[in-house]
Amino acid sequence: MSRVFNFNPGPAALPLEVLEIAQRELVDFNGTGMSIMEHSHRGKAYDAVHEEALANAGKLLGLNDDYQVLFLQGGASMQFAMIPLNLLGAGQSADYVNTGAWASKAINEAKKVGTVNILADTAKDIPTTMPDFDALAYTPGAAYVHVTSNETIAGTQMKSFPKTEAPLIADMSSDILCRPLDVTQFGMIYAGAQKNLGPSGVTLVVIRKDLAERGTDSLPAFLQYRTFIKNNSLYNTAPTFGIYIFMLVTRWLLEKGGAGGIEKINEAKAGKLYAAIDGSNGYYRGTAVPALRSTMNVTWRLPSEELEAKFVQEATAQGMIGLKGHRSVGGIRASIYNACPAEAIDALVAFMTDFQAQNG
Amino acid sequence: MSRVFNFNPGPAALPLEVLEIAQRELVDFNGTGMSIMEHSHRGKAYDAVHEEALANAGKLLGLNDDYQVLFLQGGASMQFAMIPLNLLGAGQSADYVNTGAWASKAINEAKKVGTVNILADTAKDIPTTMPDFDALAYTPGAAYVHVTSNETIAGTQMKSFPKTEAPLIADMSSDILCRPLDVTQFGMIYAGAQKNLGPSGVTLVVIRKDLAERGTDSLPAFLQYRTFIKNNSLYNTAPTFGIYIFMLVTRWLLEKGGAGGIEKINEAKAGKLYAAIDGSNGYYRGTAVPALRSTMNVTWRLPSEELEAKFVQEATAQGMIGLKGHRSVGGIRASIYNACPAEAIDALVAFMTDFQAQNG
Repeated sequence: MSRVFNFNPGPAALPLEVLEIAQRELVDFNGTGMSIMEHSHRGKAYDAVHEEALANAGKLLGLNDDYQVLFLQGGASMQFAMIPLNLLGAGQSADYVNTGAWASKAINEAKKVGTVNILADTAKDIPTTMPDFDALAYTPGAAYVHVTSNETIAGTQMKSFPKTEAPLIADMSSDILCRPLDVTQFGMIYAGAQKNLGPSGVTLVVIRKDLAERGTDSLPAFLQYRTFIKNNSLYNTAPTFGIYIFMLVTRWLLEKGGAGGIEKINEAKAGKLYAAIDGSNGYYRGTAVPALRSTMNVTWRLPSEELEAKFVQEATAQGMIGLKGHRSVGGIRASIYNACPAEAIDALVAFMTDFQAQNG
Repeated sequence: MSRVFNFNPGPAALPLEVLEIAQRELVDFNGTGMSIMEHSHRGKAYDAVHEEALANAGKLLGLNDDYQVLFLQGGASMQFAMIPLNLLGAGQSADYVNTGAWASKAINEAKKVGTVNILADTAKDIPTTMPDFDALAYTPGAAYVHVTSNETIAGTQMKSFPKTEAPLIADMSSDILCRPLDVTQFGMIYAGAQKNLGPSGVTLVVIRKDLAERGTDSLPAFLQYRTFIKNNSLYNTAPTFGIYIFMLVTRWLLEKGGAGGIEKINEAKAGKLYAAIDGSNGYYRGTAVPALRSTMNVTWRLPSEELEAKFVQEATAQGMIGLKGHRSVGGIRASIYNACPAEAIDALVAFMTDFQAQNG
C-alpha cells in the first residue's frame, strides 16, 4: 500500500499511526468482541473513550474549571447559528470581523438573530490580509466579539488575539491546536474536527460555563450549550466513532509534545514551504500578507493559470493530492495541518523546484 | 477474535461483512492511498460513496421523484426541533401521538415552536400498547401529524399507518427499513442511523419536496431542509465516514433482498424469540401487547427483579451483550435490529431455556 501525500483542506490527512490503530481494532475494540461503533454510548467501553477525549482536549488546551469541553455535531455551520441563538440576547448587538468566506457565513447567520456590527471587512477586496484587531472600534456593551482565527481559503491566520471587553469567540476550525493558546482570552472557541482533530461529524466547542447559561430554555434543547454541559455531551447519541478518532488524534498530539510540540513541527513545515516560495525569484508568489501567513494553509500563485493547472495535474500524478486553490480564488493551496507529515513538505518542495526548472 | 452477540439498543450491531470491508480499506480506500475519512467531501472518491448511499436508500424505500433523501446530523433529537421549526407555521397546530419516551421528546420540542394537540397518550401508564391510530380525532387543518413507528424502550411497533389528511411524519429511528414501506403515505420519515443503518452521527431524512419549501429563510440555514435539498446534503462538510458505513450497510441490505428480504429474516428472528417467551409457561412474560410486538426490540420480564439481574449477568458472561431493559421500565430487552444475526437469537433462546431450567 502506498500512501499519497494529502494536502486536502478538510476533511484532511490523519496521522497514519491513528488510522492503523483504528484499523486494527475496527472489528474488535479492546477485546470486547465488538466494534467501537457497536458499543452503547452509555456503556463502559465507550465511556472510557469519551472521557479520554474530553481530558485530552482539556490538557492540550490547558483549560481551567471555568471552561467546559463539548462535543457537538453539525460543524462550524451549526455553531454559526447556535452562537447568536444562545448568546445574542434581545436588544443586544454582536461584533463580527469579516476576514473571509467563513467569517461571512457566521455573519449571515447572526444577522437572522439580532443586530450585527461588522467592525472590519477584508473579505471581498483584500482577502489576503486581516485588519489590525487591536485597532478596531469594538462596540461597548456588545454581547460578544466573533473572529475567525484562520481563513482556510485565503491562507491568512491571526497571530495574536485582541483584548476585548465583550467575550471573544473564535472559529478555529482550521487551526485549532496547531499552537499553544491561552484560552482565558476567549469566551468560547470552536472547531469542526475534520482539519486538525479527526474526521468530519464532530465539532469541538470550548465554552466558559457562565456564557452557556445565557441561552434561554425556549430554544430547542439540541441548540442549547447548557444541554450538552448538563449531559457531558451525551444528551443524545453522540457521534461515537468520530469522538473515538478524536481521542486517538489528541493522544497522538500529546505524544508529540502537546500544543508546544506540534507548533515547532508546524513552524518547521510551513517555514520550509514559504522559503521555497520566497526563494523562487518570483516564480511562485505567496498570496497572504507575509505577517499573516498561515501555518496551516499555504497559498500561492504561478505565472499563469495554465501553469497552475499543469502544476496541480503533475503534482497529483506524483501522489500529491489536494493542491488546487479554492475555486473562489484560484491558485495553489497546500493545507498542511498537524497530521500532514514533514515528508509531504519535502516532496512538495522538491517537486516545486523541478517544476520551476522545467517550466520557468 | 470472538465476536459477542450484541443486543444493544443503539448504537447497535453492524453486519460483520460491513465491518470487515471497512477494516480492510480503512487506511487505503479503493487504492487511493488515503482513508475515506481523509477524502474531500467534494472529491470524486467520496462523491461516489455519497451518491451510492443516496441511491441505495432510494431503492430500498422505493422512492418516487416527489421525495428527497437527505443526510443530516444530530440524530432524531435535532429532527424533534427541525420539524416544527420548518413545518409548523404561525397560527397552525400540529398533531402528535404520545406512545413513549421518544414521542414525548418530540412533543416537548414542538411545544416550544407552536400549538401541539396530543391526540392520544399511552406513554405514562400503558407504555406496553399504542392507541388505535385509525380512530384518533385528527385536527382539521393541522400542519402535520407526528408518530413514532417503534418505541425502543417499550418494545411496541406500529403495524400499519393511518390515512391522515395532514402530512404524516414518522420517527422511524428504531425500525427504519426493517420491512417494506409505502413512503407515499408520509410527508416525511426520519431515523438516526445507529440502529438499523450504520453508526451514530448520521440522520436519514426522507421528505416530500413540497414540504421542505415550507421553512422560512429566516431560519438558520443549517436548520432548513431546503438547504440540504439544494446542496444534495453537502451544504457543509458531511459526516463522510458515517455515510460511507451507511452506504455499505444499505448495499448489504440490497444483497439480502432489500426491505422484503430483510423483513422475512426479521420476522423469523423475532418469531423465534417471542415463541420462546410464550412457550415458557409464564416464566418469561412479554410486556408489549401481542398485536403490537416489535420485531426490533423484544421486551419481557422474569418472575422477579433479582432473577432479571441474574439473567443479564449470566447472559453477559456467555457473550450476550446489552440485554438489560431501559432503566425507566426495567426487565429484559433484546434489540434485534437488521444486523443482529440469526445465530444470536439461537444462542439467546438456548440460554433462556437453560436459565429457566436452572432458576424456574
